[in-house]
Amino acid sequence: MAHDIHRRGLMLVLSSPSGAGKTTLARQLLASDDNISMSVSLTTRAPRPGETSGVDYYFVDAQKFGEMRNANELLESAKVFDHYYGTPRAPVEEALANGRDVLFDIDWQGTQQLQEAAEDDLVRIFILPPSAAELEKRLLTRAQDSADVVARRMAKASDEISHYAEYDYVIVNEDANESSSIIGAILSAERQKRSRQTGLTDFVKRLRDSL
Amino acid sequence: MAHDIHRRGLMLVLSSPSGAGKTTLARQLLASDDNISMSVSLTTRAPRPGETSGVDYYFVDAQKFGEMRNANELLESAKVFDHYYGTPRAPVEEALANGRDVLFDIDWQGTQQLQEAAEDDLVRIFILPPSAAELEKRLLTRAQDSADVVARRMAKASDEISHYAEYDYVIVNEDANESSSIIGAILSAERQKRSRQTGLTDFVKRLRDSL
Repeated sequence: MAHDIHRRGLMLVLSSPSGAGKTTLARQLLASDDNISMSVSLTTRAPRPGETSGVDYYFVDAQKFGEMRNANELLESAKVFDHYYGTPRAPVEEALANGRDVLFDIDWQGTQQLQEAAEDDLVRIFILPPSAAELEKRLLTRAQDSADVVARRMAKASDEISHYAEYDYVIVNEDANESSSIIGAILSAERQKRSRQTGLTDFVKRLRDSL
Repeated sequence: MAHDIHRRGLMLVLSSPSGAGKTTLARQLLASDDNISMSVSLTTRAPRPGETSGVDYYFVDAQKFGEMRNANELLESAKVFDHYYGTPRAPVEEALANGRDVLFDIDWQGTQQLQEAAEDDLVRIFILPPSAAELEKRLLTRAQDSADVVARRMAKASDEISHYAEYDYVIVNEDANESSSIIGAILSAERQKRSRQTGLTDFVKRLRDSL
């Protein structure tokens, strides 16, 4: 909007079982909207070739990770195999205060932690595949996944899906372009929520004073 | 969406001071979206030339109006000068059950009554003018309003605006096309709310059973 009402940013969470199309939808959203950025996670695993700290991840050692977690400097964290992953609080807080939105590609467990840390700023979208057959087809056509990985992901999908009712919005991802435009609409609408427009009280006061 | 998940319709309320552009925005929304219709009010005033019962209003006598109100058959009602106006419950309930959305052009008092009657189905948008000067200009350029009417409407605007904080969304209507597209986005987003997708439980159960 052209008027100057300050807005607090929001945290947009996309969750889904692997293969439901979430990564494509996140990429389309980031490409089409200048005011939202992907949250950069903190991890204790070593950088892979080509990965840049601060872009792909913030790379830290286990001691630093533990210190940050204990100091409540992480919005959520998880251990995956031998490594820790988490979301640093400071860059997210700074973005929100500046009216910028932050995108999270996390599972139901991370979402529950964000919910506890920052309920009012959270907008949770769950992406469902249109059918089990379609989910399997998408997993199989991913060149990088072995049949074994596909089987494990199908088994895990049911658990992830069981948490759909903890989300604000649910999209059945039949057509990626249609789903993208729905995600864009959700973002536009949520930005317009009265509760996020922190400058509204002053605006209305000035408006009423001049009437 | 192409899939067959049943959705309960929603009640979209547009409120604003007179002259903020609400009527234009309502008209644009009705023209651009096939799944939303204007709520038809009940009134005890006589039909004006060209008005059709069931289209412009449902015309009834005061006794019938009183009976319906006492039987809880109205979602909201008000007395304006010598006449009663109200929203019949049955056609709205039927539309919502069929997944159709209903648009209401009502003030803060009607909105409060709808809130009590049907909180979960309600989506409330408040339209603000960008400035007092712009509001006056818009009221003055309406051919049908005398200077006297304009002065009264400006005075009333301040009271109406004082209720903006009772609404879910607030739009400062600087540009009608931009505001229209925001209202369209709010409608798309709200339709995607998990809580409105009444067929989702069954869909997810079938999906998980087949995984």
